[in-house]
Amino acid sequence: MKLIRFGSTGAEKPGVQLENGTRLDVSEFISDYTEEFFGGDGIARLKEWLGKNQENCPVVSNDVRLGPPLARPSKIVCVGLNYAKHAAESGMAIPKEPVLFFKSTSAIVGPNDDLVIPKNSQKTDWEVELAVVIGKKASYVEEKDALAHVAGYVLHNDYSERAFQIEREGQWCKGKGCDTFAPIGPFIATADEIEDPNNLDLWLKLNGETLQDSNTSDFIFNIQEVVSYISQFMTLLPGDIISTGTPSGVGLGFDPPKYLKAGDVVELGIEGLGSSKQHVKAYQ
Amino acid sequence: MKLIRFGSTGAEKPGVQLENGTRLDVSEFISDYTEEFFGGDGIARLKEWLGKNQENCPVVSNDVRLGPPLARPSKIVCVGLNYAKHAAESGMAIPKEPVLFFKSTSAIVGPNDDLVIPKNSQKTDWEVELAVVIGKKASYVEEKDALAHVAGYVLHNDYSERAFQIEREGQWCKGKGCDTFAPIGPFIATADEIEDPNNLDLWLKLNGETLQDSNTSDFIFNIQEVVSYISQFMTLLPGDIISTGTPSGVGLGFDPPKYLKAGDVVELGIEGLGSSKQHVKAYQ
Repeated sequence: MKLIRFGSTGAEKPGVQLENGTRLDVSEFISDYTEEFFGGDGIARLKEWLGKNQENCPVVSNDVRLGPPLARPSKIVCVGLNYAKHAAESGMAIPKEPVLFFKSTSAIVGPNDDLVIPKNSQKTDWEVELAVVIGKKASYVEEKDALAHVAGYVLHNDYSERAFQIEREGQWCKGKGCDTFAPIGPFIATADEIEDPNNLDLWLKLNGETLQDSNTSDFIFNIQEVVSYISQFMTLLPGDIISTGTPSGVGLGFDPPKYLKAGDVVELGIEGLGSSKQHVKAYQ
Repeated sequence: MKLIRFGSTGAEKPGVQLENGTRLDVSEFISDYTEEFFGGDGIARLKEWLGKNQENCPVVSNDVRLGPPLARPSKIVCVGLNYAKHAAESGMAIPKEPVLFFKSTSAIVGPNDDLVIPKNSQKTDWEVELAVVIGKKASYVEEKDALAHVAGYVLHNDYSERAFQIEREGQWCKGKGCDTFAPIGPFIATADEIEDPNNLDLWLKLNGETLQDSNTSDFIFNIQEVVSYISQFMTLLPGDIISTGTPSGVGLGFDPPKYLKAGDVVELGIEGLGSSKQHVKAYQ
């Protein structure tokens, strides 16, 4: 099943996208895709309800805006440097254990919303990433049990301001949590749709030119390892997002580096998870 | 006004604490202290409502558990190394601009809930901190306007696992977001109650011995600077928490370092913001 949210910012309704691309409004069944939905076996209940009620669901026009496909989660935990070539292009060593950082949830926007370059930014960069949506509370979970805690998978562009992230005092969060820096979607593919999350092609184009083109089989730490690892440090709640790192080809890695400017168009996608497109705007 | 939440974990109701210590249930007026409450001028509306209805509010017994005095916010942004002596004891330079990091909101607990030492932790440490609760969306706010975006102030113990934070790969978040690592409360003092947040005594005792004893006038970056600064990187939402850093006297700063063990009792307080007490337990 593919979960979507549609409508204007802050007033999104839940829906599903069928195999033929038709989008259905399921707000009669559930008001939103929240922590309670994921944690309360909502996906199975929605599937069952759809089996009986699909014919009566209103069809959503394809020109309606897509929002992020879930309500604001408690946290976005990101894995840094999880592809060997990206660690190299960033000038960093291959980590011995996962590097973690948080991204602010106020950065979340819909998959095709504009990317707004922050005031005073010179180095806004892209990062196509496979993100995991947690389905069941995860605390001290073993690797062998980790995938049972996953509700589904979603495309994420982990936008990053490299000067804010690396050149300012302290931690990476200054360059990771800016508004519009987390376009998520178009949809969450429920876990049963993705045969092997550790073997998915992913790509990103800037103004039509392919700059990232890799496969999640190049992960240093795979999904099971990452979910289990994070759960040793904090409880993952239903609906929480884990973003699993980006492959090589980010702006920082070019010589000279390439960064985004107003008017640029960023497109990205992952096998089985659709694609998204962001128009780059200056802050006004 | 002093805002509290009371009742069992996950089922807290909103209340207020009067000057004489009496606690009143205000759930007839509002279901919770949420982003919508703070952003929708809820404090002023609650005050007005209380003026007419206080006599009819149920009294809450003083032996009822206090929860964190607000619903889960979108984020906790923390300022690191914001007191000169604490930077020195941590072996770090005085920062030229605020050091920021995020703390996981799943770490939030009530003010007197147990502190649970994580599995495999050897270096769990304390940090008494003044926290700010945002009252109005803040994006690119100037220092002179910053305090108008503050709803109130609250006591916070920014528990930190130093090995997870400093000795593991990457960012500080591994040692900052563990469950129970953010006891908040007993109450939020609304901004009008605190004449000068940049001049408040704060203290922390371990098993009765005073280990932190300072004043927020020793801030490197004061409240106005911090709120304005963070808002240059991300939008602060109503209900968001900013924790402003800890003074010297944390376990890491002793020679040899002192860390928490099961059975320890941590008490802390800030002038005008009450006190809290955590019993230290091992993970079971």
